[in-house]
Amino acid sequence: MDLKHFSFAALVLVVSSGLAIADPLPSWKGTEAKERIIAFVESVTDPASEDYITPADRIATFDNDGCLWTEQPVYFQLLYALDILKQKAEADPSILSSDVLKAAAAGDMEGMMAGGEEGLLEIINVSHGDITVDAFEASAYEWLTTATHPTTGKTYASMIYQPMLELLSYLRDEDFTTYIVSGGGIDFIRAISQEAYGIPPSQVVGSQGNTSYQVVDGVPVLQKDGGISFIDDKEGKPVGIIRHIGQRPIFAAGNSDGDFQMLEYTMAGEGARFGMLVHHTDGEREFAYDRDSHVGQLNRGLDEGPDRGWLIVDMANDWKTIWPE
Amino acid sequence: MDLKHFSFAALVLVVSSGLAIADPLPSWKGTEAKERIIAFVESVTDPASEDYITPADRIATFDNDGCLWTEQPVYFQLLYALDILKQKAEADPSILSSDVLKAAAAGDMEGMMAGGEEGLLEIINVSHGDITVDAFEASAYEWLTTATHPTTGKTYASMIYQPMLELLSYLRDEDFTTYIVSGGGIDFIRAISQEAYGIPPSQVVGSQGNTSYQVVDGVPVLQKDGGISFIDDKEGKPVGIIRHIGQRPIFAAGNSDGDFQMLEYTMAGEGARFGMLVHHTDGEREFAYDRDSHVGQLNRGLDEGPDRGWLIVDMANDWKTIWPE
Ligand SMILES: [Ca+2]
Ligand SMILES: [Ca+2]
Repeated sequence: MDLKHFSFAALVLVVSSGLAIADPLPSWKGTEAKERIIAFVESVTDPASEDYITPADRIATFDNDGCLWTEQPVYFQLLYALDILKQKAEADPSILSSDVLKAAAAGDMEGMMAGGEEGLLEIINVSHGDITVDAFEASAYEWLTTATHPTTGKTYASMIYQPMLELLSYLRDEDFTTYIVSGGGIDFIRAISQEAYGIPPSQVVGSQGNTSYQVVDGVPVLQKDGGISFIDDKEGKPVGIIRHIGQRPIFAAGNSDGDFQMLEYTMAGEGARFGMLVHHTDGEREFAYDRDSHVGQLNRGLDEGPDRGWLIVDMANDWKTIWPE
Repeated sequence: MDLKHFSFAALVLVVSSGLAIADPLPSWKGTEAKERIIAFVESVTDPASEDYITPADRIATFDNDGCLWTEQPVYFQLLYALDILKQKAEADPSILSSDVLKAAAAGDMEGMMAGGEEGLLEIINVSHGDITVDAFEASAYEWLTTATHPTTGKTYASMIYQPMLELLSYLRDEDFTTYIVSGGGIDFIRAISQEAYGIPPSQVVGSQGNTSYQVVDGVPVLQKDGGISFIDDKEGKPVGIIRHIGQRPIFAAGNSDGDFQMLEYTMAGEGARFGMLVHHTDGEREFAYDRDSHVGQLNRGLDEGPDRGWLIVDMANDWKTIWPE
């Protein structure tokens, strides 16, 4: 070991410091939203600050649909389920054993929605069941990276929000651990979470189907059996967090009333806290919806969020770009 | 920034390298067990080895009772449950509403065991229910660090295995992520996991009781409601692993047939793998038990493990010490 190496190390350190001073959120406009996020992160990471929080406690949780990626015209996972259902029905029409399944395979959204939650569960059971977790994740990954969105023509995997990617990276650079806490299925999100968000499978919390361990012809597999064992939405989000992470977050981001309890729980902890809701205000570049939307409905969060100190991010005014270019 | 700092850095590096060459498992005797563990770790961490495995895939899972700490005369968590039951019954004798609960509170082990699994569930419900997760963890921590073991007189928290602590540290030093995957309750283990093992709450997988989110007088709490929602044992261990970690481990350690499926699943993956069972052979220093034990029964693992390439650790012959001095 000689001093040449240390000179190189010094150079790396200087360059790193330079980068740290650079804008961590370049796709965010210079509005109050960006200022508040940066002020929070700086206050909890500065050892001299009274708000300082140790890295082990820097837990940040993010909703997925409508917070990290688009959720219109309907949740991507439902579009995936419909595509798989159609494929399976072509091979074996007898699987369409109910009106809801027939409507779904025919693309009749109204007929499908008429079945309510039970109908959706039926669609999920047929499209997500009878497959190993590994094979399901491979199928979901394939679909997310090749199938295209009905209005943008982009792949689903490319409809993640650039400003949120920067926020995830910024937090991780500041020694936060970033989790997804989603109403969507855990296996579906894990198929792409590392590649799309830099979030490993162990840091994805989501709704869960029944899964069993089986040894088939001497090969151990984890099998998706259909049915839902846990719904990670509304009151389920804090439950999912305590089950999976075992610690209260200090930062939580969502976009709908399904995130209300996650933000409420996060903000009720001691010390500095940050809660934010992404408000879909940008009908030109993305989709504009809130109180009356059939997905991502946001009422209570808009009514109570500001008084509770939650940041309401205005996509049209706070974000320079929506998706990665 | 000047060169003086780099000289200091060089010193630190040299000292660190020195430590890395030192024995990583000083409480293990120089037997085949230790050689096999070190050979495995070196082969998967050496970038030049054909068995090299990237740090993101270096997942190691450890059973807790009988693998990381003692489980005799009976699981520590059951002893905790009995102590809490007695405390609660002193304050309100009417909670002893069944023969099993009366037997348990009276310390009548046979009467208690006569109730079978349902009886144990009743004891868990009464002792572990109607409390917030936070309060439960505080209570479990207090008990683990102050109550003492009936035969050793040590605190339960001090009856962790020194050789296994060294193994956990060694693996983490080599960029493994270490998880507990236990049939015991997740909240009970999390109460002490960071302090005892250096394992944060997010890396504890265990059996789970029903938990609900409630806002009580304006304060959000996570409440333990009694009942069991997931049993992380036998076939449940690979299920718990895929739910929680989302990746197959490359290293798994256990001590009973409750770990069989975890080791089977781990070893069936592609590439280099390591499975080990701690065999309780040391009646002098700890407890000797295997095939006929009422806790930690080990039959199939002894019969099939060696042929499957699993390491059977002989506590009497492979370990210099049992608990930290
Ligand atoms: Ca959402
Ligand atoms: Ca065990």
